[in-house]
Amino acid sequence: MKQVVINDLKKIVGDKWVDQNPERVLSYSRESTNDNYTLVAPEPIEGSVVVKAADAEEISQILKYANQEKINVIARGAGTALSANTIPAQESIILSLERLNKILELDEENMLLKCEAAVSLGDLNERLKSNDHLYFPLHPGDEGAQVGGMASMNAGGVRAVKHGIMRNQVLGMEVVLPTGEIVHYGGSEGKLLKNNAGYDLMQLMIGSEGTLGIITEVSLKLYPEPKANGTLIVAFASREDAFAAVPAILKKGIIPMALEYVEKDEIELAAADIGKKWPAQNGEYFLMIMLSEAEEDDLFEIGAQIDQITAEHNAVDMLIAQTTAERKDILEIRSHILPAISDKIIDSPDVTVPRSKLCEYLNILNELEEKYNTRCPVVAHAGDGNLHVIILKEAGSKPDYYESLKKDIYQNAVDIGGTITGEHGVGEMRLEYLKMMYSERELEIMEKIKDAFDPNDILNSGKSIIRK
Amino acid sequence: MKQVVINDLKKIVGDKWVDQNPERVLSYSRESTNDNYTLVAPEPIEGSVVVKAADAEEISQILKYANQEKINVIARGAGTALSANTIPAQESIILSLERLNKILELDEENMLLKCEAAVSLGDLNERLKSNDHLYFPLHPGDEGAQVGGMASMNAGGVRAVKHGIMRNQVLGMEVVLPTGEIVHYGGSEGKLLKNNAGYDLMQLMIGSEGTLGIITEVSLKLYPEPKANGTLIVAFASREDAFAAVPAILKKGIIPMALEYVEKDEIELAAADIGKKWPAQNGEYFLMIMLSEAEEDDLFEIGAQIDQITAEHNAVDMLIAQTTAERKDILEIRSHILPAISDKIIDSPDVTVPRSKLCEYLNILNELEEKYNTRCPVVAHAGDGNLHVIILKEAGSKPDYYESLKKDIYQNAVDIGGTITGEHGVGEMRLEYLKMMYSERELEIMEKIKDAFDPNDILNSGKSIIRK
Repeated sequence: MKQVVINDLKKIVGDKWVDQNPERVLSYSRESTNDNYTLVAPEPIEGSVVVKAADAEEISQILKYANQEKINVIARGAGTALSANTIPAQESIILSLERLNKILELDEENMLLKCEAAVSLGDLNERLKSNDHLYFPLHPGDEGAQVGGMASMNAGGVRAVKHGIMRNQVLGMEVVLPTGEIVHYGGSEGKLLKNNAGYDLMQLMIGSEGTLGIITEVSLKLYPEPKANGTLIVAFASREDAFAAVPAILKKGIIPMALEYVEKDEIELAAADIGKKWPAQNGEYFLMIMLSEAEEDDLFEIGAQIDQITAEHNAVDMLIAQTTAERKDILEIRSHILPAISDKIIDSPDVTVPRSKLCEYLNILNELEEKYNTRCPVVAHAGDGNLHVIILKEAGSKPDYYESLKKDIYQNAVDIGGTITGEHGVGEMRLEYLKMMYSERELEIMEKIKDAFDPNDILNSGKSIIRK
Repeated sequence: MKQVVINDLKKIVGDKWVDQNPERVLSYSRESTNDNYTLVAPEPIEGSVVVKAADAEEISQILKYANQEKINVIARGAGTALSANTIPAQESIILSLERLNKILELDEENMLLKCEAAVSLGDLNERLKSNDHLYFPLHPGDEGAQVGGMASMNAGGVRAVKHGIMRNQVLGMEVVLPTGEIVHYGGSEGKLLKNNAGYDLMQLMIGSEGTLGIITEVSLKLYPEPKANGTLIVAFASREDAFAAVPAILKKGIIPMALEYVEKDEIELAAADIGKKWPAQNGEYFLMIMLSEAEEDDLFEIGAQIDQITAEHNAVDMLIAQTTAERKDILEIRSHILPAISDKIIDSPDVTVPRSKLCEYLNILNELEEKYNTRCPVVAHAGDGNLHVIILKEAGSKPDYYESLKKDIYQNAVDIGGTITGEHGVGEMRLEYLKMMYSERELEIMEKIKDAFDPNDILNSGKSIIRK
């Protein structure tokens, strides 16, 4: 980055908050993608600068300056993205939001929590502990994830079956537009449950992967904390049986907090890697069902119903974890599946299909495994049709069929009504596959929306939307 | 409309489906706004033509033609809009969707109902009766409302407290873009629970009031039908007490299906108008709380809790309606409040404020009542902060303070973090007030989004977004 730019940035945020140290710039330039998908993640271009703004006002000045000088700006949260969403592909201002780390308000009357962008999910949950009746349900795997990034990426995760994804939790936002204006969505206080005035730019901002604006504050919906929680693990001898049980459970009116699918090899490895033990002895394929109910009695009644339904689908075992410690262990093991095998995996497309088509998609995957003579382990948010399909290394390297297999994984999902990404977003890694889902005209509309917000294309340029 | 246009349209849809009869064109040009707000609703411009397309393919041809000839096109559902959202302000093609009236699929595995645009809420509920465990919660007042219009307007209504508004129910759509392309949102089947591929154009379409595309199919989320239903009516002697009880109930973790606020004069009039009796004898101000729970026992327990909470807020009476007939009566009376007094009202802004600010807003309304020496009855979806403030006629006419009072009603809502419309949308009637909520830059972005979808501005031109 040119020295004159560095000097100008220092004038905005102060000398202390502009960092050019190559090692630190590198650590701010890499994200979880680089750690998890070492062989296929793009490495950052050098020469960027890290800027740590104090507030929306400073961010506004930075964006106005970047617009004038046509410099790319990348909003940086916890760096937990998984599709090369924040890795500089050109010399950039890496705008770290870490100083925007305050929980602004726990508003019990409106049942919401208002946070600055860099409040992590862990911080948020810690803050809610002091409150005995409201909680935030969402849980993408990494508790380091920050609310600004979670909104920007429309995070999902395991606990999305009952209350939905991030999009459903955001009631308001403060955003700095690429052209520098500070705007508020969800009314001036970000506390509206209904708003039909004009196009819903907040919904557009959610999931836009840092390309339309810098989210500086988020108001999150809270829910009454369920009084009775339990996690069931149901074991099956076949994949098909496990997946067939999913719609059967939901159709009965049982809506768990989470309904996950995991496989034996991966879950046992994940458990061992963090020094814990996966509690199920029998079976190879597991449904992990997190129940949250009003009363203990409901828990047992629903447990009994699930036992009956899954028995009809040839379940070989069922366990129930009721203590907080047991349940936490199970969630931790589940969250650790991908990190635990990151040295074995090339990539992990997070395709999503209609929930009822999970079985069909798994049969297709079986065919792909045969076609490429490999194994594709699967972790799935079975309750919402979202799969993480793991593409494994071959003898420690990228197999020559990688591109072809990946394309098949995406195309087959799209062909049966699915999407190329249900959680991790497009980033750089899925840009070329957007064409599988959208016509030229739809992509053109997306480009024009990007232009409307960001006429000079300074914000996270080249990520998430194809640019001419 | 020029004869050559009529002939061209007949070539697309067939002679039978093009109607120029002035009386019928007028009835397709007017909407509920004209019936409810007779003195302030704009009257339609004459000379439009009604076209009844068979399917998305014909609609595509009509839009391509309209683009070429630069003719305004207005999508027409049931005509239940309330903000002059579909009244022609210029010679238009009124594109009636009435032939797209098929329920396409009740998909129990994915818990969704796929309908063509003109399926009414009544039809939809009728269809779901044959199914003993899934239901659709939303209930905007008029069961004639059609799903395409409900999505286009992001309908709300009374039953939005537990499961949210229309935006939260739409899993997929088929839409004809203004330029004629037929596109599918939510994957090719419209059945996705998670999709993070690209900007979420479906969310943008929801609530865009027919200005960005013609919705031809909608997939709606269904929920397990609650086994125990009850409606409580809690009576208060003061407005403030009634509203103060609302957050107190919700904070306790009681999330009803609906939490409504009504006032004695209006509710008794509505009841009488449809030959029914409002069951509460005491009190002037009422909370109407619709509970949907898993078990009968829960209903009684929650009822007892509400009794205690509302007693602390000086409730003077509580009634419980448990039979289906009683509950239906109450909902019908509630839905009839505005129709029953339509001959007395000038207008009814549906401002929304943060739920905790309802009391504050009502105090402001009291001041406005004094300032203008009038009465402003209020009907409120108290559970989500959404009010319908009624502006009354004076001696059967529009009072000279109407514009000024209306502006005060909007501006005061916006000033305390609210919106000018929580349900009915912008239409023609609120266009000038969008500036209260959004900066020039935000309105410019909205305009450019409109341009991206509709470069020739043929779709519902001049409604909902300020045009240069």
